[in-house]
Amino acid sequence: MTITTNILQTLPPPQASLRNASRLVQPKLSVVGAGPGDPELLTIKALNAIKQADVVLYDALANAEILAYCKPEAVAVYVGKRKGTPSISQDEINQLIVRHACTYGHVVRLKGGDPFVFGRGFEEMLYAEKCGIPAEYIPGISSAIGVAGLEHIPLTHRGTSESFWVITGSTATGSTALGSTAFGSTAEGEYSRDLHAAAQTNATVVVLMGLGALPAIVEVFTQHGKAHLPVAVIQSGSLPYSQIVTGTVADIVSIVHKAGVQPPGIIILGEVVGLRSALNSRVRA
Amino acid sequence: MTITTNILQTLPPPQASLRNASRLVQPKLSVVGAGPGDPELLTIKALNAIKQADVVLYDALANAEILAYCKPEAVAVYVGKRKGTPSISQDEINQLIVRHACTYGHVVRLKGGDPFVFGRGFEEMLYAEKCGIPAEYIPGISSAIGVAGLEHIPLTHRGTSESFWVITGSTATGSTALGSTAFGSTAEGEYSRDLHAAAQTNATVVVLMGLGALPAIVEVFTQHGKAHLPVAVIQSGSLPYSQIVTGTVADIVSIVHKAGVQPPGIIILGEVVGLRSALNSRVRA
Repeated sequence: MTITTNILQTLPPPQASLRNASRLVQPKLSVVGAGPGDPELLTIKALNAIKQADVVLYDALANAEILAYCKPEAVAVYVGKRKGTPSISQDEINQLIVRHACTYGHVVRLKGGDPFVFGRGFEEMLYAEKCGIPAEYIPGISSAIGVAGLEHIPLTHRGTSESFWVITGSTATGSTALGSTAFGSTAEGEYSRDLHAAAQTNATVVVLMGLGALPAIVEVFTQHGKAHLPVAVIQSGSLPYSQIVTGTVADIVSIVHKAGVQPPGIIILGEVVGLRSALNSRVRA
Repeated sequence: MTITTNILQTLPPPQASLRNASRLVQPKLSVVGAGPGDPELLTIKALNAIKQADVVLYDALANAEILAYCKPEAVAVYVGKRKGTPSISQDEINQLIVRHACTYGHVVRLKGGDPFVFGRGFEEMLYAEKCGIPAEYIPGISSAIGVAGLEHIPLTHRGTSESFWVITGSTATGSTALGSTAFGSTAEGEYSRDLHAAAQTNATVVVLMGLGALPAIVEVFTQHGKAHLPVAVIQSGSLPYSQIVTGTVADIVSIVHKAGVQPPGIIILGEVVGLRSALNSRVRA
């Protein structure tokens, strides 16, 4: 397997492309959920797609260990965000998918969690199909559910919560990169209306990519009389070095600050957070 | 592997229990999500737990093909609901888990979807731990996310929906078995308040085990001026014989009725349902 972060390196010069054209290249896109990080939380279907892939385009949230399953001749390209360098735009990623599929064949677009939960996987499938490349979706364990559960927080529990609401901390335009700073201020975004509605119900609320918006989130819940509602913040969920802190709407910001919890992290607001202490065991399979 | 639906058959007579006591039985519970049905949507971690299990207690929603992964001497017991026979109560299931763990060792409690999404998995872990049996949770692909995605309905999509709300069609007490009839009337339950709140936002709403409550659900959305909101109903999602029907809040009840869609099914209400037609490809990996 060739791993590269230099995108141009992975596309052959024009002559080679012509040679490739005489091979029967069958372009195909699999948009694959890698789950929250633990490689064992890949589905069998996802694993098989990775094993068969000619190219894997992966982002920051997927665990790089998963790339070890690629076949030796596969090309792996990092297309996630990186501090200090300009991010690759979604348009560029779309084009990379198509160019790699036409050159090599089967492209796996590997994303943390599930590709259709704030993952823009559907946009990539639409673009590929518009270019004549058939596209499939392979689900992944969403951090919203799996990471909470692995920390013994059930999103639903009879008598405590009969529903859960999953929301993103970034806006629709993605212009405020809330995930990139732990305590940046946030403008009232798209998510704000939903948050106000959610804060008035008994639903468990899960905020993904929202650590930067935590002060704004607790303000909304405080406004609706929920200062004592239990809150958990989890960093690197499902990995051996995962970290969880818990508190209430009133004190979680200072607890997160003291513990030095860093993005990306998930936030869970709801009475179910309090159930966690009822279960002590930590069996690791 | 021994498969039985006669629960008493799987527990040995007292003499055998005494003999077992001289073996070193290490009781352990793994509450495992089987995903929506397609065996390839098991995680690697779930598959490993099933392969190692001494006993698998499974319910109706998990695909029975998955049991083929059990070791030859494993005992598989069906504890789901069955038409025409009295259901096994949750108390009885809790006791079965403990008795099987103490007799055989490693019990896998296999559940459709994810065990903490309306699965009562946390209750079973609490009970086992109270009896001194260590318990772990292994997440599964929730139908709410995975089944929708496999039918090319992304729960979130930039510019269309920035959050999703997952809700159950049954009440907190479970007294109205809404899932058991396609068009039974439903009392105003716990979920009703949440539904009213959800109907007033742009969140995608997913209702699990709610086919029987469909008339009541569309009534709530109609009250909030959402008669034209797209709705999808999916039966047997992820399986080769899956069925999907789509319509709007105004006409979905008659469409479901005409198509003969049967429970269990999932209901998706939101503009994202309309995106489905933009994607034509049906690559099957």
